[in-house]
Amino acid sequence: MAAKKNEKDLTQKEKAALIDIKIDELGQELVKEIEAGQNPHLDIPIRGSGNVFYDEKAKQIMLGDKIAKRYLFNVAHSRRFMQTLLVASYVKKDLLANNLTATLRDLYYAKKHTIAGTKEDTIDEQKESDGAIVDLEVSLETFRERLHLRAEPKGRMAGTLKVKDRVRDKVDTIDLERMGSGGWAVPSIVEQIEFVDSEIEYVLVAEKNAIFDRLNEDDYWKKNKCLLMTTAGQAARGARRLLQRISAELKVPIYCLTDSDPYGWYIYSTMKYGSMALAHESERLGCPEMKFLGMSTSDIEHYDLSSVTIKAKEVDIKRAQEMKAYDWFKTKEWQREINLFLEKKLKAEIQALSSKNLQYISKTYLPEKIKSQDFLP
Amino acid sequence: MAAKKNEKDLTQKEKAALIDIKIDELGQELVKEIEAGQNPHLDIPIRGSGNVFYDEKAKQIMLGDKIAKRYLFNVAHSRRFMQTLLVASYVKKDLLANNLTATLRDLYYAKKHTIAGTKEDTIDEQKESDGAIVDLEVSLETFRERLHLRAEPKGRMAGTLKVKDRVRDKVDTIDLERMGSGGWAVPSIVEQIEFVDSEIEYVLVAEKNAIFDRLNEDDYWKKNKCLLMTTAGQAARGARRLLQRISAELKVPIYCLTDSDPYGWYIYSTMKYGSMALAHESERLGCPEMKFLGMSTSDIEHYDLSSVTIKAKEVDIKRAQEMKAYDWFKTKEWQREINLFLEKKLKAEIQALSSKNLQYISKTYLPEKIKSQDFLP
Repeated sequence: MAAKKNEKDLTQKEKAALIDIKIDELGQELVKEIEAGQNPHLDIPIRGSGNVFYDEKAKQIMLGDKIAKRYLFNVAHSRRFMQTLLVASYVKKDLLANNLTATLRDLYYAKKHTIAGTKEDTIDEQKESDGAIVDLEVSLETFRERLHLRAEPKGRMAGTLKVKDRVRDKVDTIDLERMGSGGWAVPSIVEQIEFVDSEIEYVLVAEKNAIFDRLNEDDYWKKNKCLLMTTAGQAARGARRLLQRISAELKVPIYCLTDSDPYGWYIYSTMKYGSMALAHESERLGCPEMKFLGMSTSDIEHYDLSSVTIKAKEVDIKRAQEMKAYDWFKTKEWQREINLFLEKKLKAEIQALSSKNLQYISKTYLPEKIKSQDFLP
Repeated sequence: MAAKKNEKDLTQKEKAALIDIKIDELGQELVKEIEAGQNPHLDIPIRGSGNVFYDEKAKQIMLGDKIAKRYLFNVAHSRRFMQTLLVASYVKKDLLANNLTATLRDLYYAKKHTIAGTKEDTIDEQKESDGAIVDLEVSLETFRERLHLRAEPKGRMAGTLKVKDRVRDKVDTIDLERMGSGGWAVPSIVEQIEFVDSEIEYVLVAEKNAIFDRLNEDDYWKKNKCLLMTTAGQAARGARRLLQRISAELKVPIYCLTDSDPYGWYIYSTMKYGSMALAHESERLGCPEMKFLGMSTSDIEHYDLSSVTIKAKEVDIKRAQEMKAYDWFKTKEWQREINLFLEKKLKAEIQALSSKNLQYISKTYLPEKIKSQDFLP
């Protein structure tokens, strides 16, 4: 039976069937309570900052074990209770049963209606159904992609790797070596993707489209047998999950390349450790093995970039001070990096390397950093 | 010789050679003026609103023929004069000569330096070099992609079409039928792309990623033999140019699908007519044959969506009133549409169709609209 297999070996259909069973079980529990004359309730892990901690061993920002009980017959609970069940019913009957996916916005439109005989709407604003979706995710110990809910996709890839992707019954094998100047767009759900013919020795994930374009034009991924990805800013869920899966399944190092500034560190730390707001997702979206290649504050001096730096603003300084206090930045290497930034008060963009020459990044900077394994943890 | 061929039949190398010649000619003109003891000058078409008009026949927002002369020996001109030549030298020596492309940011970093013997920087902020780039574009009667300058790319595609894309000497044939759930990412420069094995009957361009994902999952492009593209919001230059080229070269209709609101109309009108800010680019970026499929305000009633509309805000009303006065919205169909919007004061998102069922858009809405050719011009 499906449940006996290793989670990662399940087919898409088996994964969907498992969620379907979980939703059924949830419903049966509620029916039992109703038949026993009890007040039906849901157990919802608490997601506030009081139940979030940093697990140093797993290198993940995690949810603690505090649980809230949400009752149907409780004026403060009943609306959200009903919304959570609306979400569960949509996922089961509209999405899983038809093998379709939808966005959070689709779900909102589909389940928003005026309750018969009242002037009350099931859902007033989308943030209510969004909250109910997360409630269902954490109650079922799953994540929204498994509920067939899509997020906004972002990011592009190219490299010495083929992937198999499935859209319902159609299977495509995509050769990431032959994506021209565009690259393959990273989808919002990547659970169905299989990695085939991998020859990659590492993944280089760049914050910026401009860096992807530069390195793709320089044939960087071919010359260095790697996979190149850009997250085009803060990484979307699809990109994060894909990096996590590549790290876990292909067991290759993942190097991250951002600007040298607190926003770059934040993009990196979210991909690596997860975030406080999505602490319940770190296990599936975090990539604890990721390493920070650069740019670092010490790169500015080492690569003689002082004429193309940007003065840090008050908000950067404040952000750096906050980050310095985060448990996941408490390693001696990051404390040194943040202290150096606070002392110099200088930011640098990756494109600052273009002041030397356009191909300096692919011919000198990256090879040097990777050869000397000069990374931050 | 290259210049005798039809512009669109030129190879990449021939196109680059033409720009190179134009830059040389510009330089030779300046040398001539210097040798004649004259004040060297550049002729720069004026880009302000006083020199922008709507060409009703070409359906394009165009630049008029007013030209400003910019002199080296004029305190108000000399800085920008020097910056324009810095840009020209970078394009010629760094980009065209090496067959490389760069971003506007790369150029800024590469040409920013302190002028020897002074405390003056060549470029203080990027907006200065950006302005100089446009000056060079319009002086040479070309556009920045031909100067090998990249913009931020955005957008994804899938459909019954193959494209050949070239990255320097590497040519990839990309089968847009086999792009899985991700799609092919639209590059920032599309001049080098060739269309092969086209079986498309039309292009459907959607404002939103969510709609691309919905239609891709529903196999819409396969069943309807079309090319599906999302611009992921306001269209990037690469996406606009690609649509323009497909319209001109493959001679298929281009249908646009946005939310029913002034922002949607704006996205459409920019793709179709160009914009006032980039009036000098309309000829290359505008797509005058594009048609507006929806959503229209009358769709709200026709498809019974009144329970899932959004009340227009003051800013929407104001925007609609402004747009009503634009020459390119003066057709009777658009005047009727805008008047209806101003009367109902309701917006609707494309995803509002999900309130019926997820596949309503691909099985009912789009086929009906396309069959009845129910478009706005």
